[in-house]
Amino acid sequence: MPASQPQTMPRHHHSPTLLPDPADSSLVRMVAGRDEQNQPTKTAVVVEKALTIFLNSQEIVTTMTLGDHPQYLALGFLLNQNMLTKHDQITGIDCDDELGVVVVRTKRTTDYEAKLKKKVQTSGCAQGTQFGDMMAEVVSIRLNPDVRISTKRMRELLSAINTTPSLYLAAGAIHGCVLAEAEAGTGVDSGEGNATGILAYVEDVGRHNAVDKIAGWMMQHRISGGDKVFYTTGRLTSEMVIKTVQMEIPILISRSGFTHAGVELAEQTGLTLIGRARGKRFTALTGVERIIDDASKK
Amino acid sequence: MPASQPQTMPRHHHSPTLLPDPADSSLVRMVAGRDEQNQPTKTAVVVEKALTIFLNSQEIVTTMTLGDHPQYLALGFLLNQNMLTKHDQITGIDCDDELGVVVVRTKRTTDYEAKLKKKVQTSGCAQGTQFGDMMAEVVSIRLNPDVRISTKRMRELLSAINTTPSLYLAAGAIHGCVLAEAEAGTGVDSGEGNATGILAYVEDVGRHNAVDKIAGWMMQHRISGGDKVFYTTGRLTSEMVIKTVQMEIPILISRSGFTHAGVELAEQTGLTLIGRARGKRFTALTGVERIIDDASKK
Repeated sequence: MPASQPQTMPRHHHSPTLLPDPADSSLVRMVAGRDEQNQPTKTAVVVEKALTIFLNSQEIVTTMTLGDHPQYLALGFLLNQNMLTKHDQITGIDCDDELGVVVVRTKRTTDYEAKLKKKVQTSGCAQGTQFGDMMAEVVSIRLNPDVRISTKRMRELLSAINTTPSLYLAAGAIHGCVLAEAEAGTGVDSGEGNATGILAYVEDVGRHNAVDKIAGWMMQHRISGGDKVFYTTGRLTSEMVIKTVQMEIPILISRSGFTHAGVELAEQTGLTLIGRARGKRFTALTGVERIIDDASKK
Repeated sequence: MPASQPQTMPRHHHSPTLLPDPADSSLVRMVAGRDEQNQPTKTAVVVEKALTIFLNSQEIVTTMTLGDHPQYLALGFLLNQNMLTKHDQITGIDCDDELGVVVVRTKRTTDYEAKLKKKVQTSGCAQGTQFGDMMAEVVSIRLNPDVRISTKRMRELLSAINTTPSLYLAAGAIHGCVLAEAEAGTGVDSGEGNATGILAYVEDVGRHNAVDKIAGWMMQHRISGGDKVFYTTGRLTSEMVIKTVQMEIPILISRSGFTHAGVELAEQTGLTLIGRARGKRFTALTGVERIIDDASKK
């Protein structure tokens, strides 16, 4: 394993952006097969490999992942499991691609032996481990009531996401998550030509991993969720709502549908929950006061 | 909790069938919201609730599930985790809907304290707990080499699945799995008019739960996988391949795509892996010798 490298976390005036890299040949394999006409065919297939996350000397979990951004995945996973806080001082993150190991080191001494025994399997593309005290914590988070998203902005954002080069377009069978400014062109990055307001777009074979990577990226770059929107290709389950609220993001959009537990939890936390968002269409079930209708009058 | 009721497991001459019940009002809620025209709308949303599985006196896992068939889910989960074998004598399965608890009781004394400490999070719609010895066991399973599926049969099966009344058609945001005869009209049930050869079609907010329900149903009714095909709406990940091979089913079909680990494991175990199956189209990447081409000549 390489020597520990302390991670610097400078505060950016222009926030960085994180986009998919479909040209990265380590993420996709070409596989030979047969099609319905019994003809030889070659298919692009995404990689899926085991990554074991350590927090200091303790093995926490082994997850099957695409394999890119292991440092963000590890940080975000530990953060979303309440094993790290945003204020924890990270003294190093070591990755070993061959061993499939990532180790997050903190100044604070950590011990989660007891927590690791208690686990809740969430639904859908599921998080393997969660803890009983998570619900209480989530309901106590106050989401920004003043953020707005217009229906015109939503259309433009969906269009920008769908046309961004991605592994989904190249190979399919992958989940995507996007962190974006609620209003385009108003973000700190607007001067750099990112007119779409997309800050981070990550993909993974595990939907929970894609979310965790964004949470880790936000922690690393000290980006707050308060004025952002979160987009996911996956369904709006209780897990998805919990993670969005943990990131303090007030608006959650998906092209997929809802579960009832997700809707109830969004109602309790005041999250704006928008599903079945494709093209111009969508259904908003909670927090509709954050949506400005500037498109339906046309 | 109700008193323990021993489960009888008669061997059926005519195998039973298990189909979705979209009319079951406990599984779907109507939720009011707004659409993209800012008009009030009502949306059908599937239920998602916590279910804690016990094996005898030991708490094993809490999973978020649709909530139907808790007894099959518990049996199949424990079976797929190698905490039960097909030969275990089940002395009772108690469900308490209000508490969200299901208890599987066995004649044999069980203790999986050590196993519960070791967990692997699989990708996609993920299984929360898996164990290191699973891969070795899976690779040792010999799948039936003589089963065949014709391209015509595959078209008919896909069409039958897509037109079966389901929660997916009623509310969306749910995964489905189907166990079917590889050849229609040849199964033990053909005399009862089930010409489609669909034996079990289950849905769940968690894809892993849908698979486990089918595994539990197969165990309860002593149905072997050797001459069957398995269909899933989800992606063909390593987890999906492992579970199909554990059920000894030689053919796995999905409307979604592949991960590379799934393809590699299918190759190692001799599983026929067919993805992107929609309408007449599909891509087969492994075990293509089981596919009979009787449609492409037309």
